[in-house]
Amino acid sequence: MSRITGLRVRDIRFPTSREHDGSDAMNPDPDYSAAYVEVTTDALDGLTGSAFVFTIGRGNEVQEAAIAALRGHVVGRDAEALLADMGGTWRSMVHDSQLRWLGPEKGVMHMAIGAVVNALWDLKAKRAGLPLWALLASMSPEDLVDLVDFRYLTDAITPAEALELFRAAEPLRAERRRRLEQSGYPAYTTTPGWLGYDDDKLARLCREAVADGFTQIKLKVGGSVDEDVRRLRIARQVVGPDVRIAIDANQRWDVDEAVEWIDRLREFDIAWVEEPTSPDDVLGHAEIARRIAPVPVATGEHMANRVIAKQLIQADAMRVLQIDATRVAGVNENVAILLLAAKHGVRVCPHAGGVGLCEAVQHLSMFDAVALSGALEDRCIEFVDHLHEHFVTPVDVRGGRYWPPTAPGAGTEMLSDSLDAHTYPDGPVWAAASAADPVRDTIRVA
Amino acid sequence: MSRITGLRVRDIRFPTSREHDGSDAMNPDPDYSAAYVEVTTDALDGLTGSAFVFTIGRGNEVQEAAIAALRGHVVGRDAEALLADMGGTWRSMVHDSQLRWLGPEKGVMHMAIGAVVNALWDLKAKRAGLPLWALLASMSPEDLVDLVDFRYLTDAITPAEALELFRAAEPLRAERRRRLEQSGYPAYTTTPGWLGYDDDKLARLCREAVADGFTQIKLKVGGSVDEDVRRLRIARQVVGPDVRIAIDANQRWDVDEAVEWIDRLREFDIAWVEEPTSPDDVLGHAEIARRIAPVPVATGEHMANRVIAKQLIQADAMRVLQIDATRVAGVNENVAILLLAAKHGVRVCPHAGGVGLCEAVQHLSMFDAVALSGALEDRCIEFVDHLHEHFVTPVDVRGGRYWPPTAPGAGTEMLSDSLDAHTYPDGPVWAAASAADPVRDTIRVA
Repeated sequence: MSRITGLRVRDIRFPTSREHDGSDAMNPDPDYSAAYVEVTTDALDGLTGSAFVFTIGRGNEVQEAAIAALRGHVVGRDAEALLADMGGTWRSMVHDSQLRWLGPEKGVMHMAIGAVVNALWDLKAKRAGLPLWALLASMSPEDLVDLVDFRYLTDAITPAEALELFRAAEPLRAERRRRLEQSGYPAYTTTPGWLGYDDDKLARLCREAVADGFTQIKLKVGGSVDEDVRRLRIARQVVGPDVRIAIDANQRWDVDEAVEWIDRLREFDIAWVEEPTSPDDVLGHAEIARRIAPVPVATGEHMANRVIAKQLIQADAMRVLQIDATRVAGVNENVAILLLAAKHGVRVCPHAGGVGLCEAVQHLSMFDAVALSGALEDRCIEFVDHLHEHFVTPVDVRGGRYWPPTAPGAGTEMLSDSLDAHTYPDGPVWAAASAADPVRDTIRVA
Repeated sequence: MSRITGLRVRDIRFPTSREHDGSDAMNPDPDYSAAYVEVTTDALDGLTGSAFVFTIGRGNEVQEAAIAALRGHVVGRDAEALLADMGGTWRSMVHDSQLRWLGPEKGVMHMAIGAVVNALWDLKAKRAGLPLWALLASMSPEDLVDLVDFRYLTDAITPAEALELFRAAEPLRAERRRRLEQSGYPAYTTTPGWLGYDDDKLARLCREAVADGFTQIKLKVGGSVDEDVRRLRIARQVVGPDVRIAIDANQRWDVDEAVEWIDRLREFDIAWVEEPTSPDDVLGHAEIARRIAPVPVATGEHMANRVIAKQLIQADAMRVLQIDATRVAGVNENVAILLLAAKHGVRVCPHAGGVGLCEAVQHLSMFDAVALSGALEDRCIEFVDHLHEHFVTPVDVRGGRYWPPTAPGAGTEMLSDSLDAHTYPDGPVWAAASAADPVRDTIRVA
């Protein structure tokens, strides 16, 4: 038996705003950040479970405080017991009646639970000697169903239906896994598309994306429609007619505005329109989806929880569901969302980028491809070529595809040197930054 | 000119769980708490703006950290400029692009903005020498519309429509105000209805409620349907056929479960069924509302923001909208929600209780009664007889009605002695509690 001995939280920030990396219509100057958590035990294996909430700068310390508030749920507990019943572990935190008031099941407190849950999954996978996707894909249908809290979901999927889905996929797992390992999982790239890049950089990065084997790119839109037309024209010209171009408005519009704006961009053969409006606006997305059809709506990176996911599906509000590894309460809740999508035949194309989101979310798609939906060729995981060098097991993306991780764990462990260098506000990167650019803490409003 | 010199945050908790006050199907042992904020300036008037986020115990320190993260938006700023443009002040915080990521517009970070916004309103009202409701009801229609951010709302209400509503009410303000001051605003009481109370206490409190002039009471349900039947039978017998009885499930059910449960309770002539399911589940509420009609659904105390409010109205998901003073981003967002309700003819019966929620929310209903919907006799504000003694200007509830506050401010300032006594974990109340009851920090799960 081993005990959880510590839950350490760290405020890690990267000064990405200096290069306009990640700039979009709502987020002009993000500093990609991680409220990073490490769970330690007294086991002789010395293994640590690591995970994080991704944020974009200010407020990362609030996220840190929320993770620290979960200490009592973890520290001092029997590690085997927590890891053997991850469904129960999840419920004990999400249904803590006092903490629940702070959401319920949304925002800072819910994401904090996600980080702790994911750190425990990282530890569990390392103990099993398996990458997380393979660990999940080795669990029995019954055990997988046990991970999921079906509260508020039973009008869209029941535990019995979930079990049926996992059971139907079980005989196919081995063959699907072989295929995944042989061919990888499709990726698309957002690297060319940030609003802050000039036309030359846009064209160059589009060219590189095609040369790198990507068959879909994504451009940020929503600043100015004329600018969007111009940038889409450049991109379409560079990539040619066969590479898909998705666009991402990052919640910029109201319903009518979205429809009018997209009408101006239709000519460029849009693969999907992402986050046209508020991520909470299920009915708004549904109305937009109806009016811009056949251009598909994509959304989900900011959906607060499985209840919003359920409604997006029920209302036919999108064609492409974009799960995020650190927005909801961790692996368990994403399994619930994958189940909803699988049952209702919705494509899942995860949100990634930021810092570590690619490393984390690939495991969910690969698990789904092996043990649940089995779908893969109509899907793609977002890829942005930033900050992978800070991870112990960075993603392997080649030829426009994600190649399945083989290292044990959830992919969410950062390098010790990177953590030390980027600790905010006292790490050397930030100490240097404040000296070089004293106005960098100026607040900009979207 | 004066400057904001400080933003002080305090962790204030009341050990209410010892008496089962506030116990319901989801919250067995709340310790009513306030993440309390005080805004100070260098003006000679010495006035302070005070407000809080209401929580139920653990995690109050997370809320505290979130409020502190807003310091840069307030401290050092020109107080007159912030207070003269409360719409702009609201936007500067809600649209802070980095902090926005932590919601967006929901949960811990959004409620923190609400507390700071409300503290500024408290200061503004004190400076004006008016209670908040009267200050709001003295503003021009144009200035009121300027308070509201219509982003994501224009498919349900436009600024022009909002202006029209305020203008139509303007000539009626004086007469409505007279009526309000003469007759008060209807209240209902939840004091009898907590799940943790035994039958004798339930019956006694029901009798007292009627004797006190209340014409509506509310009972918590959702623990066990047989228990609910028994308790409703007692309550109905005591209060007679003419007093309305509402029930509150505190998010306990899935859709089918809600419908079946309520079918068992119909015979008691239910005034409304509150929070039958997840507060995020607009479509679930709509389905329940359709299937239990004509029993009305009430919800809103946990709705994260105006976008959820909009959809509840669009989907016909409830008949009674229950705004809360500290769940959304303060007065401004509640004005937006009151506008949505007024335009679409929805009854607003605010959630209150907790600590200070009665003191805070009455101002919003009274403003609405004077300067917006004008409705009053078909509405009622929740009242729970707890913890009012800790406020500088406690509510005045007599004869089953709220009487309009006359003291300048928003009602949200607590007594200095109460703050000191209930500071967590070092105030005398908590130091004593830990000594007397060493297991009180045990975590219970709903």
